Amino acid sequence: MAKLKAIKGHIIYTKVKDCFEIHENSYIVIDDKKIVGIYNELPDIYKDVAIIDYGYNSIIIPSFIDLHIHAPQYLQMGIGLDLELIEWLDQYTFKYEALFSDVNYAKKLYPRFVDALYREGTLRSCIFATIHNESNNVLIDELKKKKLSAYVGKVNMNQNAPDDLLQSTECSIEETKRFIEDSNNTGDSIKPIITPRFAPCCTSELLEELGELSIEKQLPVQTHLSENKKEVEWVKSLFPNNKNYSDVYKRHQLYGNQKTILAHSIYLTNEEVEMASKEKNVYLVHCPSSNSNLSSGIMPVTYYLDKGINVGLGTDVGAGNKLSMADVITNAIQYSKIRHVYNEEERVLSLSESFFLATKMNGSFFGKVGSFEKDYYFDALIIRDPDPLTSCLSPLERLQRFLYCGSSNSIVERYLEGEII
Amino acid sequence: MAKLKAIKGHIIYTKVKDCFEIHENSYIVIDDKKIVGIYNELPDIYKDVAIIDYGYNSIIIPSFIDLHIHAPQYLQMGIGLDLELIEWLDQYTFKYEALFSDVNYAKKLYPRFVDALYREGTLRSCIFATIHNESNNVLIDELKKKKLSAYVGKVNMNQNAPDDLLQSTECSIEETKRFIEDSNNTGDSIKPIITPRFAPCCTSELLEELGELSIEKQLPVQTHLSENKKEVEWVKSLFPNNKNYSDVYKRHQLYGNQKTILAHSIYLTNEEVEMASKEKNVYLVHCPSSNSNLSSGIMPVTYYLDKGINVGLGTDVGAGNKLSMADVITNAIQYSKIRHVYNEEERVLSLSESFFLATKMNGSFFGKVGSFEKDYYFDALIIRDPDPLTSCLSPLERLQRFLYCGSSNSIVERYLEGEII
Repeated sequence: MAKLKAIKGHIIYTKVKDCFEIHENSYIVIDDKKIVGIYNELPDIYKDVAIIDYGYNSIIIPSFIDLHIHAPQYLQMGIGLDLELIEWLDQYTFKYEALFSDVNYAKKLYPRFVDALYREGTLRSCIFATIHNESNNVLIDELKKKKLSAYVGKVNMNQNAPDDLLQSTECSIEETKRFIEDSNNTGDSIKPIITPRFAPCCTSELLEELGELSIEKQLPVQTHLSENKKEVEWVKSLFPNNKNYSDVYKRHQLYGNQKTILAHSIYLTNEEVEMASKEKNVYLVHCPSSNSNLSSGIMPVTYYLDKGINVGLGTDVGAGNKLSMADVITNAIQYSKIRHVYNEEERVLSLSESFFLATKMNGSFFGKVGSFEKDYYFDALIIRDPDPLTSCLSPLERLQRFLYCGSSNSIVERYLEGEII
Repeated sequence: MAKLKAIKGHIIYTKVKDCFEIHENSYIVIDDKKIVGIYNELPDIYKDVAIIDYGYNSIIIPSFIDLHIHAPQYLQMGIGLDLELIEWLDQYTFKYEALFSDVNYAKKLYPRFVDALYREGTLRSCIFATIHNESNNVLIDELKKKKLSAYVGKVNMNQNAPDDLLQSTECSIEETKRFIEDSNNTGDSIKPIITPRFAPCCTSELLEELGELSIEKQLPVQTHLSENKKEVEWVKSLFPNNKNYSDVYKRHQLYGNQKTILAHSIYLTNEEVEMASKEKNVYLVHCPSSNSNLSSGIMPVTYYLDKGINVGLGTDVGAGNKLSMADVITNAIQYSKIRHVYNEEERVLSLSESFFLATKMNGSFFGKVGSFEKDYYFDALIIRDPDPLTSCLSPLERLQRFLYCGSSNSIVERYLEGEII
């Protein structure tokens, strides 16, 4: 009984993408880290458990998960966005990333980045770090200090980047192995993930060894796919023997053998869409503000969803200019509406769908995460608007206001695996 | 000498839309309400004036102006955005607006709305109130208390809305006259503006009388134009004798005789674009997030600008889901990039252009406002990021960060007409 507790309030989550589950003024019973059930009235067997009541002016929702974010770009967020992808990488991103050869810089920046994740309620994320293991370990330490959960990737590049960010294939693989070893010793909450930056920065040899490593160590993969038209052409010229961009990863065992995040995935051929729809391990991750900031394009989210593809959501900070997943959820809807204006046959993403993507879909990358169903980890945010004028609002309207025009100030409590963090 | 002072810091503004004027570590000298000049070193004649030095980690920019916002929709912001315009008006907006028949509701809501404008650095705005004069006067009182400047409009509707929001033509005009009289007695900072809601809610007779009133009292006009395809069709059926939607206003002397705000203006015919380009009093006001939220479309901003049209920017709260003009500035850029992806011939809006629209262009509706040129009113925001890690950023990079990912917390001081408010 000691590890049981009940959290009371207006509970909102999505079991399926088409609708919200709303339990007004109800109880979630938690046994240690996991959810036992949701009850309108507390059953007799739980009548002695501790109750935390968040009251009528709060809602309880699954905490956010960000499937695509670059930690070293935190300070760069919002800067240089008049450029497109390749120029932006050259003129800004690579310069900021090179700073992490100095571990003291990491010690200054990463605590701020991790604080921001915590503040915005993003309690789990899939993070690109840099090539620099000493700095990468600082990031892991900071995440642990704040009790956040994450997959962290040591970035791999052996071509087409400034010299100070390139490693030989051998060194890149050795350092990746060392990083995996180090981070596997840090407990369950932080795990390593295989992270080739994207095809243009990796030779076939490097991709092959990373694919083998992923299978050998049973580690998931994250990389970029088809973000920008010029990039797609570039990949074609670099990998002329591959059928398409997705096939570059597939042929190197970096596509669907393990759980795989492919950020952006805007300009997929029909063949690539079919490929993705058949791979239950593959997540195409939509990063709306990044895609508009770099004039990349917009993912046809509802088309992919209706094909049965796993579509995730990410901020892609620093090309994405907001760290909050609430902004990503609403931007994804707004951009799908703009696509709908241009092509009326393409349907609009609904609020419940977008919320589902940021919680249960993104959460499935981590296991039983992102929903309030039985046996899911209890990861949650308590959102409160104490203004008496909002007492007329329904729980769903409170959620809409938080997502569309709220701020992290409304997040008054954060739970990860049943514990307040 | 007594009314002279100098404000020191990194000064950024736009004189023309194509580039920023940046004066690092310089002085703006102010005589009472207006700017005398900007100096790298303070000239001898000003050596005895009081200096306020905001330091290296701040920037000084013109304060924001919002050319299109609905005060009564403040609580509704973010709610019901799965609908399109007409349905959203019927199911949400009109219900919220009807609440203002009770002045006590206005006394609760309007202070919150005005606080939010102040907090976000929007020190001047063109506001739609409601049909209810008693509540409208509460709004004016609150704006005065916070020392903000605004045009406030009593809304006019005599058809196609719920009964409790309709007035007879006679009553609508009488109440408008009374509102003009009341608000003309409130001093210079708050002024009345003629406000037919939009053509579908006004008979030709009402529009005609409002046009005459505008000319007689020399008052500017604000209304909506061509926001949604169904609305455009509706106007065609309601006003079959007019050439197009713009012509409905033109024929009723509500288009360009006085300064005129036409919010949205998305689906203009070539003829209407030509019309707007010839009227120096006409402002087409782009409200990006509102237009995506209601699946309306996106204004072709750069096309209009290149035609010489005055394009302003507005939040359009509550269909717009952010009250900050920083979000409007960046959303306008993002959406123009999305238009560019669909039509590569249409160029992208630059940061300096979008900033110019929200400051000097919007400001010109109020007179010499929105720039730091000689004889302009000194309306300014001091933006500070005290984090030592940002000391490497240039003033322009600080501005980019504030606009793309900052928050009102970074606004540490607000000046209107030379005075800290």
